[in-house]
Amino acid sequence: MQPTGLAAQISPLDQAAMVAAKERQDNLTKPKGSLGRLEEISIQLAGITGNPRPSVKRKAVIVMAGDHGVVAQGVSAYPAEVTPQMVMNILGGGAAINVLSRQVGSRVVVADVGVAADMASTPGLVSRNVSHGTADFTQGPAMTAAEAEQAIKVGIDILESEWRAGLDLVATGEMGIGNTTPSSAIIAVLAGLAPAAVTGRGTGIDDDGHFRKVAAIERALEVNRPDPDDAFDVLCKVGGLEIAGLAGVIIGAAQHHIPVVIDGFISGAAAVIAAGMVPEVKPYLIASHRSVEIGHSAMLELLGIQPIFDLNLQLGEGTGAVLAFNIIEAAARILDEMATFAEAGVSEKEG
Amino acid sequence: MQPTGLAAQISPLDQAAMVAAKERQDNLTKPKGSLGRLEEISIQLAGITGNPRPSVKRKAVIVMAGDHGVVAQGVSAYPAEVTPQMVMNILGGGAAINVLSRQVGSRVVVADVGVAADMASTPGLVSRNVSHGTADFTQGPAMTAAEAEQAIKVGIDILESEWRAGLDLVATGEMGIGNTTPSSAIIAVLAGLAPAAVTGRGTGIDDDGHFRKVAAIERALEVNRPDPDDAFDVLCKVGGLEIAGLAGVIIGAAQHHIPVVIDGFISGAAAVIAAGMVPEVKPYLIASHRSVEIGHSAMLELLGIQPIFDLNLQLGEGTGAVLAFNIIEAAARILDEMATFAEAGVSEKEG
Repeated sequence: MQPTGLAAQISPLDQAAMVAAKERQDNLTKPKGSLGRLEEISIQLAGITGNPRPSVKRKAVIVMAGDHGVVAQGVSAYPAEVTPQMVMNILGGGAAINVLSRQVGSRVVVADVGVAADMASTPGLVSRNVSHGTADFTQGPAMTAAEAEQAIKVGIDILESEWRAGLDLVATGEMGIGNTTPSSAIIAVLAGLAPAAVTGRGTGIDDDGHFRKVAAIERALEVNRPDPDDAFDVLCKVGGLEIAGLAGVIIGAAQHHIPVVIDGFISGAAAVIAAGMVPEVKPYLIASHRSVEIGHSAMLELLGIQPIFDLNLQLGEGTGAVLAFNIIEAAARILDEMATFAEAGVSEKEG
Repeated sequence: MQPTGLAAQISPLDQAAMVAAKERQDNLTKPKGSLGRLEEISIQLAGITGNPRPSVKRKAVIVMAGDHGVVAQGVSAYPAEVTPQMVMNILGGGAAINVLSRQVGSRVVVADVGVAADMASTPGLVSRNVSHGTADFTQGPAMTAAEAEQAIKVGIDILESEWRAGLDLVATGEMGIGNTTPSSAIIAVLAGLAPAAVTGRGTGIDDDGHFRKVAAIERALEVNRPDPDDAFDVLCKVGGLEIAGLAGVIIGAAQHHIPVVIDGFISGAAAVIAAGMVPEVKPYLIASHRSVEIGHSAMLELLGIQPIFDLNLQLGEGTGAVLAFNIIEAAARILDEMATFAEAGVSEKEG
């Protein structure tokens, strides 16, 4: 993969739009800075979109599904069959991500990029299966370079298709039994931390399972020797197909000037891969929440971004990100809709 | 004021509804507890409403406006004329609270309970002025007991009127130049802390103003000797009319089984007064955010509640509370709308 080619298509944020947005915020009928994080987000949105009064109306969450060979090592509390079952649940509208998306008027796009089942003819599913799950990374690389590249391309393609349909804000989501394991492996390598320090309980494994999970990651790093200075190499060796797909979504969003809201731990893994490959994506990221997963904070630190809230979430699917849509939309509306001191005839600060 | 009479009308939360809500949460298609705070809020809503699948559709923020004699001491960065000006701005739909309320479909009710101007014939305003502002509490009590009681009654009345119109969720909001000063005085007395430890910059006063503000509160406590074991006495001596009104809103909400979302520092002062007078209101409270105001944490601690988020807000008007409406509604929708494992045909956890 040629990160240079991808980066060339990503502009830095529009400084003039940010200055204009800040100036408007300072003239709205409230003490300067009193809407804290909302004001900061509105200015970031202005910079990303190049619009000093950006609009957040057309929203989508892109849920990438994939399976993981490493589940053979007993690292997850749920069987792998749950991945396609939950894909069907999301397509049927019964999952958490559906409920939250309905509430805020967000589209839900579900893509099979690596499910270990034949879902090709499933109605409503974006069928872009690259492989029926990754290989068990305790035995060798999770993916070939060609597979990882193809999965990234799936993400970029889907983002482009959503952008063509009209898109002001996008969230990353995922479904994949076992996918906290590759996510822990990724952050362990990229942050230079011991696997035990960044490996949590996922969907709720017991002590023995947690021990197996840490051991599997340690073995994977020994067997594959991923290069911490080469995020694409890390992705191929210890990543996942849905993680690669989401990295593509992030890169595509930055290319198209669309703010991209990062969900929890697996989305965070995709973000550190994307930012490792193409650092120019960083200013386009908005972190929604701090996950319960212990490795998540190291990801946020590596990305240099602060989450909007911490609600003890650890579900994935994009739930935390879509929950943050309302706050991001509020930030844009405040900037656009509030009256200025002059318009409202309100006296300004004394002295 | 007879707190006993008020308390008699407030039931404890409905345990059976809470047990049923918890049981349903545990059967929805997600790992148990993985929606963290959302699950907790949904169970609290069930307990408050007595409905195991509560609905959050009809929403209102009640914005109480009042002025403060203590502004004569130079404690605020804005002149007192801004109170009626901002009331007009809210009635005109141009304030932050209007923007956020429109987004989530919340009614905005604005009441004059103590503005120091004649607003009696203002269209759209709930005109229940008790007095044209409080007295300067550095010279004597801010209010008489009769005034404070009347202002509390205004809050209870408005809540009842909104309840009759249909109400699932209510937020406290306020507008009153100078009102961080009585709020700091209230928490200093009720938490037994030094005024300097709980007095912030309000809408942005400079060092000299901050010194005057702390000194004014110290003088008020010396002059009035409010009884820390008698919240109503504290309210009369160092409170405000809008703070009394909001205490009434909180008490009324608990009487009518309506969850009440507390905004920032001034709403927090009203909540500690209400909870001091009638401790039975506490389980009905939901704290929306942690304010920048340094005294706010002491209030949350006294109430024993954790805020939903911390977005560095310090505007008031109910903005933080209405911003949290979406998350509280999401909590209710998750509980009501998600599919169970059985409904979706998804395999449960192994072992």
